[in-house]
Amino acid sequence: MFTVQVARGVPLSTLCPKFLHANSTSHTWPFSAVAELIDNAYDPDVDAKQIWIDKTQIKDKECLTFMDDGNGLNYHKMHRMLSFGYSDKKAVGSKHPIGRYGNGFKSGSMRLGLDVIVLSKSEDVMCVGMLSQSYLTQIGAEQITVPIISIKETEAKKYILLTFSNGSLLSSWSLLLGYSVCSEEHRASLQDILRYSLFNTEEELFTELQAINANRSNTGTRIIIWNLGRTSAGNMEYDFTTDRYDIRIPSDVFVSTSEPERAVSSVPESTFSLRAYCSVLYLKPRMQINIRGLKVKTRLISKSLACTAKDAYKPTSVKQRIPITFGYNTKSEEQYGIMMYHKNRLIKAYHRVGCQLNASNVNGIGVIGVIECNFLEPTHNKQDFENNDNYRKTISSLATKLEEYCKEIQYKRGKASNNVPVEDTEKSPDQNWVQCSSCQQWRKLPDGINTDDLPENWFCNMNPDPQFRRCEIEEELADSDSEQPMNQKTYKKQ
Amino acid sequence: MFTVQVARGVPLSTLCPKFLHANSTSHTWPFSAVAELIDNAYDPDVDAKQIWIDKTQIKDKECLTFMDDGNGLNYHKMHRMLSFGYSDKKAVGSKHPIGRYGNGFKSGSMRLGLDVIVLSKSEDVMCVGMLSQSYLTQIGAEQITVPIISIKETEAKKYILLTFSNGSLLSSWSLLLGYSVCSEEHRASLQDILRYSLFNTEEELFTELQAINANRSNTGTRIIIWNLGRTSAGNMEYDFTTDRYDIRIPSDVFVSTSEPERAVSSVPESTFSLRAYCSVLYLKPRMQINIRGLKVKTRLISKSLACTAKDAYKPTSVKQRIPITFGYNTKSEEQYGIMMYHKNRLIKAYHRVGCQLNASNVNGIGVIGVIECNFLEPTHNKQDFENNDNYRKTISSLATKLEEYCKEIQYKRGKASNNVPVEDTEKSPDQNWVQCSSCQQWRKLPDGINTDDLPENWFCNMNPDPQFRRCEIEEELADSDSEQPMNQKTYKKQ
Repeated sequence: MFTVQVARGVPLSTLCPKFLHANSTSHTWPFSAVAELIDNAYDPDVDAKQIWIDKTQIKDKECLTFMDDGNGLNYHKMHRMLSFGYSDKKAVGSKHPIGRYGNGFKSGSMRLGLDVIVLSKSEDVMCVGMLSQSYLTQIGAEQITVPIISIKETEAKKYILLTFSNGSLLSSWSLLLGYSVCSEEHRASLQDILRYSLFNTEEELFTELQAINANRSNTGTRIIIWNLGRTSAGNMEYDFTTDRYDIRIPSDVFVSTSEPERAVSSVPESTFSLRAYCSVLYLKPRMQINIRGLKVKTRLISKSLACTAKDAYKPTSVKQRIPITFGYNTKSEEQYGIMMYHKNRLIKAYHRVGCQLNASNVNGIGVIGVIECNFLEPTHNKQDFENNDNYRKTISSLATKLEEYCKEIQYKRGKASNNVPVEDTEKSPDQNWVQCSSCQQWRKLPDGINTDDLPENWFCNMNPDPQFRRCEIEEELADSDSEQPMNQKTYKKQ
Repeated sequence: MFTVQVARGVPLSTLCPKFLHANSTSHTWPFSAVAELIDNAYDPDVDAKQIWIDKTQIKDKECLTFMDDGNGLNYHKMHRMLSFGYSDKKAVGSKHPIGRYGNGFKSGSMRLGLDVIVLSKSEDVMCVGMLSQSYLTQIGAEQITVPIISIKETEAKKYILLTFSNGSLLSSWSLLLGYSVCSEEHRASLQDILRYSLFNTEEELFTELQAINANRSNTGTRIIIWNLGRTSAGNMEYDFTTDRYDIRIPSDVFVSTSEPERAVSSVPESTFSLRAYCSVLYLKPRMQINIRGLKVKTRLISKSLACTAKDAYKPTSVKQRIPITFGYNTKSEEQYGIMMYHKNRLIKAYHRVGCQLNASNVNGIGVIGVIECNFLEPTHNKQDFENNDNYRKTISSLATKLEEYCKEIQYKRGKASNNVPVEDTEKSPDQNWVQCSSCQQWRKLPDGINTDDLPENWFCNMNPDPQFRRCEIEEELADSDSEQPMNQKTYKKQ
């Protein structure tokens, strides 16, 4: 047995390398793991404006990479990221953190592959850390060790000068480390990273660090995961070929989240297409997600519905009434149910309630509900809510309100005096909203504009409405719009 | 920041005290956490014959206690139990371990309460360890420390002699530690345990250790959990009063596992009664579970059904055909669905499939299916299976086979020439099995004996069948019985 380390004379609880896998099994669905890494970039401590998710090949190894333009990590933050349970994420202004438990990076990355290297640049320091199951197995580790090196920005500049004054990249990182205050301390870590990561020379590592330079902020973090997950049959868990601009889960690996017998046509695209999942991952997206070079068109879901109506739910545990938006899916009428968010992040997608569960009932088919349930507790893997009394009351109330919405729509259909069939109005959303590629704010467009016809990159200065034509102008309040408030419930008055 | 500990010059990944809670959130249902602690006693490394689960009060604190008569822990095993991911559980004979990840004790105990103390006696040593969120908070720990002390059996005997020769219990553990080889090493741990656990003197602690003596094996482990979980409304998460011999979850805390709108009458008792859950927790129970002093009558579920029929499922991933038993629930016709086990342990209970999901269909109501799915992967909290292709194929096949079973029963009902209505045959099981209180083996009783009339403690020597009247005789093979093999499918032949 290894010597037990102590603090104040009392043994430390230790971490077995095998725990990395055990801990990752919480994510049964690979995209649940991807979402953890996106959340980390999104959270206010990193506060990235962009994240790039790519598939690449390094020395014959297929890799998944995640790069953000956020604040980057210093040595201390890197060590906490590679440890368990350290989280001091705080709300910054109106941005509330999604992460709470300090486990998302570990459980997420180790679900996606066996090994991960994190390269980061913050304002004054560059850092590299490695969490690798293959490495720990090869060295026969009895505890989880995490090689970390850091280089001060000033030292890095000297390195660049050195390499370029020599006209080559052959100068030595060791020389560089010679300058650094903490050089000796990091030597063993550097050796292990070079020996067991995909970057076997200091130059390769430094070149990879340089890639973080490519964005305007000059800070950010680059995560590279290799030895990607495989199915029990030995196939790659991801499909990179069906769509060159997407990362998909092959249909034999994953078809449906919950109902095995659901028809394939009604399986939401978000369960097998990362692009589709990312487009609805945040209720109000504030960070641009790019998958394999192509930006994800985020979908402001509550604004993409037809025949929209507002309702509200008052949980016993909180004072405010929580708004619910109901409406018809304008894209596919087979994908319906409640979209349940928590602090802006999608937890349950297309969750069918009440009459939607009854196969012989046509009510509720095609209807989407959107609610942000900050008063509920997400489960460990953020793919469900804790099944407690609060949750059950919420679902039960959503079922009732959905039926009321359906009755209201039926009543209106009966009364419809204009000549447009109601079915046709379901083909296009009540409102058209577009996100500015620069400020990431959402702008409402006048009726008659089809958002599909807009350019890939749309900016505030293209807005036909002069009132919202500049990025400096704050977003229009969602509640100021012309949606039908549900409490009128005209069908009941009759 | 605390000094980062290193191994071979490389930083160790560390554990934040807050991770104890984070890690426990995997168990959304309290009994899921209880099951982890029962599994630990059941697994072949501990190999307990009995476990006693009790509610007690120590110094005004409500406590849950778990005591087993298994092999006990030495210092090394205790440290691994209080660390993360160390598991070297191996199959012993035909007993396969349920635990794999070395996380059950941590996630389970920390879900049930804030603090836990483990007292253990193995053949030659006594050990005490503490995992306490309150303690770590109070000392302002930045890493998880786990106070552990161990005393050699010989030293403990000296201690007893000393205390009793003095005619009092006032003699000092410190004196005892003076004899021990590792005394100095454990002094800080002992101080922290006495200061922060419910046992504040060496005598109290030693008295508690003595309690493990009470069983025949003289070895075993006693787990005491305090500062028990409370609901957000501040109420105790457990109901100890409705049934003096049970531990229940109040209905406002937990009514249903999955379908919020299921009628209360159809919620399986096992979701809110620990006694009911423990009675079906193992497919073939080998360990006696006692709750609050009263033994749990384990239910050999596949033997408690009426109109039983056998079928089998051949997964693509394994060579054997996996037996399935279908039959009617003889206790309650509202509790039905598939009982899915994994390595003898219940994973999903009363999981409705196929026609059972269709509310307007009467087929499948009251029918229970039993299958042991060792070829599937349980999820992180052992309350579900990974939703992969294998799982979906299994569920789909179970749905088909359930419908075939229903058709077969319907056909037989039509053909029934005897005068006993089929409905009446569903009131009593096809066979009567009883478990011996001594050897824990199951014995089949002749027809006409009602197991409810048997004494609380039944032994092999009471068996009317002389062939199986002694504990030394091996259990009758389950497959040797007279059940109707499904592959006859008489209804198809017509």
